[in-house]
Amino acid sequence: MLISPAPLPPRSQRVSSAKPSPVRDLLALTRRPEVISFAGGLPAPELFDLDGIREAYDVVLGQPSSLQYSMSEGDPALRAEVAAGYTIDGLPTEASDLLVTTGSQQALGLLATALLDPGDVIFVEDPCYLAALQTFALAGARAIAVPFAEDQLDFDALERLLAVHTPKFFYTVPTFQNPTGRTYTPESRARLAQLAIRHGFRIIEDEPYRQLRYSGDPVASMATLAPDHVICLGSFSKVIAPGLRLGWVRTTPDIHPAVVIAKQAADLHTSTIDQGAAAHYLASGRGRTALGHITRAYAARRDAMLDGLAEALPDGSTWNQPDGGMFVWARLPDGYDATPALTRALDHDVAFVPGAPFFAESADERSLRLSFTTYEPARIREGLQRLGAALQAG
Amino acid sequence: MLISPAPLPPRSQRVSSAKPSPVRDLLALTRRPEVISFAGGLPAPELFDLDGIREAYDVVLGQPSSLQYSMSEGDPALRAEVAAGYTIDGLPTEASDLLVTTGSQQALGLLATALLDPGDVIFVEDPCYLAALQTFALAGARAIAVPFAEDQLDFDALERLLAVHTPKFFYTVPTFQNPTGRTYTPESRARLAQLAIRHGFRIIEDEPYRQLRYSGDPVASMATLAPDHVICLGSFSKVIAPGLRLGWVRTTPDIHPAVVIAKQAADLHTSTIDQGAAAHYLASGRGRTALGHITRAYAARRDAMLDGLAEALPDGSTWNQPDGGMFVWARLPDGYDATPALTRALDHDVAFVPGAPFFAESADERSLRLSFTTYEPARIREGLQRLGAALQAG
Repeated sequence: MLISPAPLPPRSQRVSSAKPSPVRDLLALTRRPEVISFAGGLPAPELFDLDGIREAYDVVLGQPSSLQYSMSEGDPALRAEVAAGYTIDGLPTEASDLLVTTGSQQALGLLATALLDPGDVIFVEDPCYLAALQTFALAGARAIAVPFAEDQLDFDALERLLAVHTPKFFYTVPTFQNPTGRTYTPESRARLAQLAIRHGFRIIEDEPYRQLRYSGDPVASMATLAPDHVICLGSFSKVIAPGLRLGWVRTTPDIHPAVVIAKQAADLHTSTIDQGAAAHYLASGRGRTALGHITRAYAARRDAMLDGLAEALPDGSTWNQPDGGMFVWARLPDGYDATPALTRALDHDVAFVPGAPFFAESADERSLRLSFTTYEPARIREGLQRLGAALQAG
Repeated sequence: MLISPAPLPPRSQRVSSAKPSPVRDLLALTRRPEVISFAGGLPAPELFDLDGIREAYDVVLGQPSSLQYSMSEGDPALRAEVAAGYTIDGLPTEASDLLVTTGSQQALGLLATALLDPGDVIFVEDPCYLAALQTFALAGARAIAVPFAEDQLDFDALERLLAVHTPKFFYTVPTFQNPTGRTYTPESRARLAQLAIRHGFRIIEDEPYRQLRYSGDPVASMATLAPDHVICLGSFSKVIAPGLRLGWVRTTPDIHPAVVIAKQAADLHTSTIDQGAAAHYLASGRGRTALGHITRAYAARRDAMLDGLAEALPDGSTWNQPDGGMFVWARLPDGYDATPALTRALDHDVAFVPGAPFFAESADERSLRLSFTTYEPARIREGLQRLGAALQAG
């Protein structure tokens, strides 16, 4: 039988306007083993508590129930561990306030489903965590970028934007931000929380790096200041390991049922096995010990990075001094552009990420992000020497 | 400082119009241990190959790389195992055609992102797998229900609808469907594939139950008939265990990059650990042995269900004879309604799912779904006796 074919329907408009993450594409280029890459945001695998994690899986896999379907909200024991952490940190939390997600990234998608219709306005930081921008764009949101003034949010700019728009939410990584390593002061948090209450927008407080603090005092969640407005995200990717793909969202009661519906539609629930193993691991107390090892090691790596930057970067460069997290944000002097500088760096077997792709509006072509968690201090020093040679060669 | 609060923004319109899955709500009610529940779609936990799966995790967790971030497309070894399975089944497939998803459910969301903009028309079966309807509704799709004529798709109705609409895709579970247990004949598959080519719509062929065949001959994927039009979904939930949350999508080349973008935005990637363990488990050959145990046990359970239905259901009831899967679809005689019948059944400590919620358009109130996989034959007979007593009491 002869049939005359019709053309296939196109892909969706929303996905056609999205691009694959440029950082992920770049990571592929920097994967040559001889490259010292400050580009990725990878935790150091030698610091994973492999024995403790393996033992947790072994215990959990002794029960057939860990292989069965489970509830969309997540493992109750794992949620209880997370709730206890918040409560100790000064934010009283019940397991029923929480929902386990397949990595913190999934929480962004669930909140987009629960809160956003196409065309809705949201506010984001400029620069901003890239994968969040992509998720919100796929939901059809219109993201408006709020700049920083030095190391803090530019509140004058924010107030001017609030005179024109009422966003559904403001998305922020207020503690050791990706890409900048910046941390909001208590005053900035209080001011943002007050604006949320006064103008009636939500705050998505994304804190995957919160527990990676090497200096300075912990700062309370904005949810202590505006409990009805602040939705908190967290992740086990940096403190246990990213391969488990475990994160969580602490919802406000008014949106909790909507987030559960979004989770059911997204993947029914997160891996029963990974959740059970994480709950067992945390309850064993090994997580606290492992986090101590991780933060001590990362503190030394941050110091090695900060100590070496003056030699590595051209005179007139600037950079910040993050109290934690994984990233230092630097700015090359007038006349430099970080993207061609990366090509020269790769010629010297060292890599970083240019800052420009992280900006939604006017990109700072002189900015760059350096990750300090992947290597031991000696290797960081070696990488910075290569970087210095590359940038001088330019 | 006194601030006058503004109201919080509402939840999204799309989530406000969605309802939590009524089947999941019902499952909560049937969880009393004394209830014999034919309601759920749960695999039998005593048939999980706990030792083999535990060993696979133990091997995989000997490598720190199984705890690290990995690629959005999924574990190459796991995709190679799935590709080999398709190729052996007569559908030549490369690992690069596949993308691992966090359960087959996630594939529905990724395809919605890759293919659908709000307002787009799609076709679904009536009745249809519920969680698919919910996912497509959250993407803003307009789902048009195509009825069945007896046990096959009503092609006259489909052609009438195609005269009016060109759907982005037709979503089907053509093998041992949920909820009906129905399987498309080779003739139905050929006819649907030809219509897709002639009218220019895609087919999403969702086959989580494909490997659970107890009688009859395997039927080739529609992708062998319309390779540019058919997107295949599969799942390890029924053949290894659902707790791993592992499924996959076999894309067509034109949409592969869009599905990768959707996956990055959804959760970056699926659990490295679960993927690695599944790949090791399948490569060990234990998966084939375990699937043999599962299908033999389920075949006996299906037979026990089919043998007992004549006694359990009122005279004039009808039901089908599925060659595989997990479900029998039954219809009570004139004058009966399955929803009040469930209340009577629960009084007798037995449960099923009324069919009505699975229909997008005019619901058949006399239909019901019975799952036969959860219990051994003796317990199934006991449950059917209770069901008979309940329905006679009504």
